[in-house]
Amino acid sequence: MTDASADFGVVGLAVMGRNLALNVESRGYKVAVYNRSEGRTKDLIEKHADKQFVPSYTVEEFVASIKKPRRIMLMVKAGAGTDAVIEELLPFLEKGDILIDGGNTFYEDTVRRSKYLADSGINFIGMGVSGGELGALEGPSLMPGGQKAAYDLVEPILKQIAAKAPEDGKPTVTYIGPDGAGHYVKMVHNGIEYGDMQLIAESYDILKRVLGLDAEQLAATFADWNKGELNSYLIEITADILTRKDDHGSNKPIVDMILDRAGNKGTGKWSSQSALNVGAPQSLITESVYARYISAMKDDRLAASQVLSGPDFNFTGDSAQTIEDIRKALYFGKVMSYAQGFDQLRMASDEYDWNLPFGELAQLWRAGAIIRAQFLQRITDAYNEDTDLHNLLLNSYFSNIAMEYQAAARRVVALGVAAGIPTPSLSAAIAYYDSYRSEVLPANLIQAQRDYFGAHTYERVDAPRGEAFHYTWYTEA
Amino acid sequence: MTDASADFGVVGLAVMGRNLALNVESRGYKVAVYNRSEGRTKDLIEKHADKQFVPSYTVEEFVASIKKPRRIMLMVKAGAGTDAVIEELLPFLEKGDILIDGGNTFYEDTVRRSKYLADSGINFIGMGVSGGELGALEGPSLMPGGQKAAYDLVEPILKQIAAKAPEDGKPTVTYIGPDGAGHYVKMVHNGIEYGDMQLIAESYDILKRVLGLDAEQLAATFADWNKGELNSYLIEITADILTRKDDHGSNKPIVDMILDRAGNKGTGKWSSQSALNVGAPQSLITESVYARYISAMKDDRLAASQVLSGPDFNFTGDSAQTIEDIRKALYFGKVMSYAQGFDQLRMASDEYDWNLPFGELAQLWRAGAIIRAQFLQRITDAYNEDTDLHNLLLNSYFSNIAMEYQAAARRVVALGVAAGIPTPSLSAAIAYYDSYRSEVLPANLIQAQRDYFGAHTYERVDAPRGEAFHYTWYTEA
Repeated sequence: MTDASADFGVVGLAVMGRNLALNVESRGYKVAVYNRSEGRTKDLIEKHADKQFVPSYTVEEFVASIKKPRRIMLMVKAGAGTDAVIEELLPFLEKGDILIDGGNTFYEDTVRRSKYLADSGINFIGMGVSGGELGALEGPSLMPGGQKAAYDLVEPILKQIAAKAPEDGKPTVTYIGPDGAGHYVKMVHNGIEYGDMQLIAESYDILKRVLGLDAEQLAATFADWNKGELNSYLIEITADILTRKDDHGSNKPIVDMILDRAGNKGTGKWSSQSALNVGAPQSLITESVYARYISAMKDDRLAASQVLSGPDFNFTGDSAQTIEDIRKALYFGKVMSYAQGFDQLRMASDEYDWNLPFGELAQLWRAGAIIRAQFLQRITDAYNEDTDLHNLLLNSYFSNIAMEYQAAARRVVALGVAAGIPTPSLSAAIAYYDSYRSEVLPANLIQAQRDYFGAHTYERVDAPRGEAFHYTWYTEA
Repeated sequence: MTDASADFGVVGLAVMGRNLALNVESRGYKVAVYNRSEGRTKDLIEKHADKQFVPSYTVEEFVASIKKPRRIMLMVKAGAGTDAVIEELLPFLEKGDILIDGGNTFYEDTVRRSKYLADSGINFIGMGVSGGELGALEGPSLMPGGQKAAYDLVEPILKQIAAKAPEDGKPTVTYIGPDGAGHYVKMVHNGIEYGDMQLIAESYDILKRVLGLDAEQLAATFADWNKGELNSYLIEITADILTRKDDHGSNKPIVDMILDRAGNKGTGKWSSQSALNVGAPQSLITESVYARYISAMKDDRLAASQVLSGPDFNFTGDSAQTIEDIRKALYFGKVMSYAQGFDQLRMASDEYDWNLPFGELAQLWRAGAIIRAQFLQRITDAYNEDTDLHNLLLNSYFSNIAMEYQAAARRVVALGVAAGIPTPSLSAAIAYYDSYRSEVLPANLIQAQRDYFGAHTYERVDAPRGEAFHYTWYTEA
């Protein structure tokens, strides 16, 4: 029988699991490791013979090698794989043990597993992990949801392995809330990431197709933007990407050799589907998901490009001024996207009774996370000023940016529309801003139509909310 | 024991069920009727003592009163209520009986119930019913999915109660496909309805807020549009609505007394959620769902309208020309919306192996359905020309409209964006058009980013599709 000497266990040693195990070990912990197929375990042990790893080749040995209450992190492919691993572990676990699912798991699965394991007295933490491979190794942003008491038992380790915010050195981890809260927040984080990436892509597209910038000029533009309020990981890597040459000998920029078909792992889609469920108008992220879908229809687009002509357009504007407009439009879009994302979080928090700590969420994305950005501190500040803030646009920093930059954003959308360059996410940002600030929207007409054909009733402007009226549009036969 | 004399049964006698029962009876059938609470049954029988109804006040009697194989239509509130009614009926049903669910049921529930009932040898038809109260009474558009053999047994009745297309007198019903196909098609029909209504609302908003048209002028504009290619039920009732005065004595147009908070019954949301699942870029409908959500946030909007200023704008254009632009933009938007909706149907048909009859779908929406319109004949024609048509935009009628009207649509979006009047769905239409006809989209940059932070790999422009490449963006520590 193995001696129970490990402080922490990791199941699943693909790149994310391996890097997290290395990260935990590097903080002075003895780490038990297990992978379904032996190869990955052996490879890790061979390459890191000097480190405090305890390898096991059966689940039973693996569980036995960890100190109680056991803290075991699952880093397996989200979905059926997670259920399978839980079933394998369950016979050997004991009351009070803690399973941490660090996969990109759908939050409803986490809610279900949390209930299921609670019946056996096993604690379950569904933890969002952002930062990619490098983040896992050097310091990710962590979003753990589950039993608070269980979180307290893993917090010391999580604080050590998490990234540290450049602003104040704080670790990018905090308790998010019960059951699915952590994975939900990670899902919205990913949705926001889709939005950020699409806004960058639309900016890049206009800079390239309308202003005619080449890769070098594009790289310089993004590098320049990264020095200001847009400063963020995604802008930084965009600048870096644009400097890179093809590694297959074409001597062209690598970006020009990459096919324009975007993939996705489903978290952006889930984020939009949940927004639709909780009633959150999360249009910018949804447009960015759809933009990936259209991009994937490459053959359709090739056929359509032969048939469907665009507008006649010649750019006659001022390039430098337009570049600055695009920079402001991108920031404007980002403000709208985060306003929508945090509105979704607020509505989901109410729906599921999670009591999410909004300001802290932005704080723990400041480092490690893919969406890390200077900008996030502004969100934390906004919630510190008003913990009940209903929408970021009602905070003075964000309302001022929106009002100041709206003119540039409007010019860029008008430019894209006139030139035939699609700006689905930036257009959604403007539409959201103009809808949200509209005291009166044309939904009165929609309600009249619904009452006309379906007797769905409507409210009146001069009667209390909730009172239903029906108009006699026609007399029934 | 009641004599089994009825030709057809209806369970659920709220307005839709009652009207459908009256419709079936009017075609010369004896109709068994049952409602959980007796009041509705008694009311129907009292008011229509001269008609061939067979009322029952227990499920057992009700089932016994119908000829075998029984044809029973459920018109109950979709959801748990449908399951409850099925469980009540089941003990009294026999092999070969046919249940028809005419509710606005989520198609996955229909798939589930279809399987469940098949175990007892009961046929199940999930049937979309469009047309509202009046349609149910005088002739709805019907979208039945289920066992083909069971459909054949109800087809004679369905053909009689359905609406008849004005073009050729054909009844608006056809076999849609297995299990959930009928309810799926009805769901997308409703999504398209959301899109049509939102496009009308955006047009109305610009006409009102930018051009300053009053209700009378607005009514005249929509009435005029209804004479041309926009001819449709929704445009027609919009014109009618705008002529109506308040029925509470204000002497104002009723539309101005209706509160601008749009409700929804969930079918638009489902439609978008399913589009996200099957990979269909259905942005216009989704924006119209989100537009309803924002409209419902009336208190937020009131607060925001005090804080967030819009652009400085004065309309200096030609009113008549702009009205014509808006008409063309609305038609352009409609073309994009139906292109997206039929693309979603195509992708869902592949996903679920339904073999949907696309051309016939448009045909059976020509009358009865809320989205009935002259325009639908064009869709049928397009699929008749090419049964494998991949996207409506690749048909010459639709591509010509898109290309001809794009300039007007671009001007209207630019106008809305400059004036601060939201056009989320029309903007989505333009973005879709420009994306779909783009040989190259900026998704190459998104793939580069994904490979950079997550090693998600990418395809190359000079390598076969499906071959995965990874760039060494940085060397790992």
